[in-house]
Amino acid sequence: MVKVSNPRVIMNKHITDGYPIPGETVVYDTTEEIDLDNAPLDGGVLSRSSQYRPIPEGFGNFGVGVVLRSENPKYKTGDHVYGIIAFQAYVIHKDVPPLTVLPHIENLPLSVYTGTLGMAGQTAYIGWKLYSEAKKGETVFVSTAAGPVGSAVVQIAKAQGLKVVASAGSDEKIEFVKQLGADVAFNYKTQDTRAILEGLENGIDIFWDNVGGETLEIAIDTLNSFGRIISCGSISQYNVTEKYGIKNLTNVVGKRLSIKGFIVSVHFRLLGDFYAEVPQKVASGEFKYAEHRYEGLDQTGQAILDVQKGNNKAKAVIVVANE
Amino acid sequence: MVKVSNPRVIMNKHITDGYPIPGETVVYDTTEEIDLDNAPLDGGVLSRSSQYRPIPEGFGNFGVGVVLRSENPKYKTGDHVYGIIAFQAYVIHKDVPPLTVLPHIENLPLSVYTGTLGMAGQTAYIGWKLYSEAKKGETVFVSTAAGPVGSAVVQIAKAQGLKVVASAGSDEKIEFVKQLGADVAFNYKTQDTRAILEGLENGIDIFWDNVGGETLEIAIDTLNSFGRIISCGSISQYNVTEKYGIKNLTNVVGKRLSIKGFIVSVHFRLLGDFYAEVPQKVASGEFKYAEHRYEGLDQTGQAILDVQKGNNKAKAVIVVANE
Repeated sequence: MVKVSNPRVIMNKHITDGYPIPGETVVYDTTEEIDLDNAPLDGGVLSRSSQYRPIPEGFGNFGVGVVLRSENPKYKTGDHVYGIIAFQAYVIHKDVPPLTVLPHIENLPLSVYTGTLGMAGQTAYIGWKLYSEAKKGETVFVSTAAGPVGSAVVQIAKAQGLKVVASAGSDEKIEFVKQLGADVAFNYKTQDTRAILEGLENGIDIFWDNVGGETLEIAIDTLNSFGRIISCGSISQYNVTEKYGIKNLTNVVGKRLSIKGFIVSVHFRLLGDFYAEVPQKVASGEFKYAEHRYEGLDQTGQAILDVQKGNNKAKAVIVVANE
Repeated sequence: MVKVSNPRVIMNKHITDGYPIPGETVVYDTTEEIDLDNAPLDGGVLSRSSQYRPIPEGFGNFGVGVVLRSENPKYKTGDHVYGIIAFQAYVIHKDVPPLTVLPHIENLPLSVYTGTLGMAGQTAYIGWKLYSEAKKGETVFVSTAAGPVGSAVVQIAKAQGLKVVASAGSDEKIEFVKQLGADVAFNYKTQDTRAILEGLENGIDIFWDNVGGETLEIAIDTLNSFGRIISCGSISQYNVTEKYGIKNLTNVVGKRLSIKGFIVSVHFRLLGDFYAEVPQKVASGEFKYAEHRYEGLDQTGQAILDVQKGNNKAKAVIVVANE
């Protein structure tokens, strides 16, 4: 039996208050070993991890892996799989793991399946389809528009004939968002969100909310009647001790707004539609994306910290192993 | 030409901050005169007002009138009509007024058409139908449950097999709500809303929100995943200088909640269904209601003030003229 090192990331506690501390609350550990040829699978699958998108809760996350051995007939050696994969180099998925075998689209880098073709893209595609009620000529305001969800929403909305107003946190991100087709793009750290939204000729009809807090309050004030808010994140509120108090929810009645909180994982019935449509568009270049790659599992702590602070320049991807 | 007095209520300004002041911001005026037989209708309708439900904005409101003369073939003398009717004894509705001719259900007092069969009942009936996604066995929390909207929601939800948790602002109102079938009813002025909601065995699935503010915040905290909030009022926030800041909207994403702001007037396509079903239930006693009657148009200022302060004991109705 030849054992190899199975590097992993240990999160000492759930990081719900304050920022994660690399090396302290997020520890890279190389002491564990695994026998790749003989470790018992109990009917499951052994995969080697490839790419991850970091989120700070728990030990698993959506990632891409390659099947090394399988005792489950749904998966065979060499399959690329997508699903919840622990932060470690090798993972045994027991029972029937809810892994998706990825479609093989020529020249598509695997990392894309963690972002634009992963939970982020699925969130954008499925959330938009289910809740936007978008009509051609309407205006959508997309927050964190350079991120993997936002950048997909910008492109979906443009393709549908909407006017897109986009915000992001650096001039570099704003450049990227403009390349995606945003009609108005601004750096919320240096420009006044309220002034920009109030200055729009026709107001906004849809707010794609990834941030919550004050931006959500401003959007509620500036949305047109019958406006829709799709909330799939509150990044501005995760790491603050004093949450922002939103004082204008009376407008929800007066303007007959709807707010829909949304996590994509409950809508996987629509995943078939997604995989049938979107990978082709990414492969052809019709759908653009950007990545901020972290090389090595030992960068996990830093990657999570950067995402939490908004310091990543684009979609954060931890490259565990190159193909 | 014989002119008669046409008493009316003049609102000197929109009452958006603070409470209305009877005699000052809301003035009863009897100086205007009208010639009932000869005043030109310009193709419209002359009606005598009967009952109103007071709201503090503008000069018109939903009320019931009786057609005295008509030059519009859709309305004939003697018809009882429901619609936006100015706060005055006699009103000429020019052009084609959006008045609904009321169904004649035996023994049904006209005032009911301003509450349980008026905008309030329509709000409850149509809002519930469109947005509750109610399933038998679920729990709904109804605020201002003794009011015309809330009391209808309580009865609709009970009839559908839901558990009803209801709040109101006096023990007298709580008694009424219990008679309507509420499983749990509490006086929010003397009991702790959070403790009661957190103490429920199965949580709440739907919040019928008439109040906004802190109660809405507590509901967001206690709602089950996939909970629905139907917001049709924010009575706690209308007359305060400092609006309540809601700090827990991140739960909207985490629990995948939906919040739907709702004013019934946009859904009048469903009014046929409403009139076909509900008046019969009120006439048979299956649907119960309560009224707080103000005798005389000169009581309008006081009625509005009472509604704004929550001092009315039940549905507020200004009786302008008895049938």
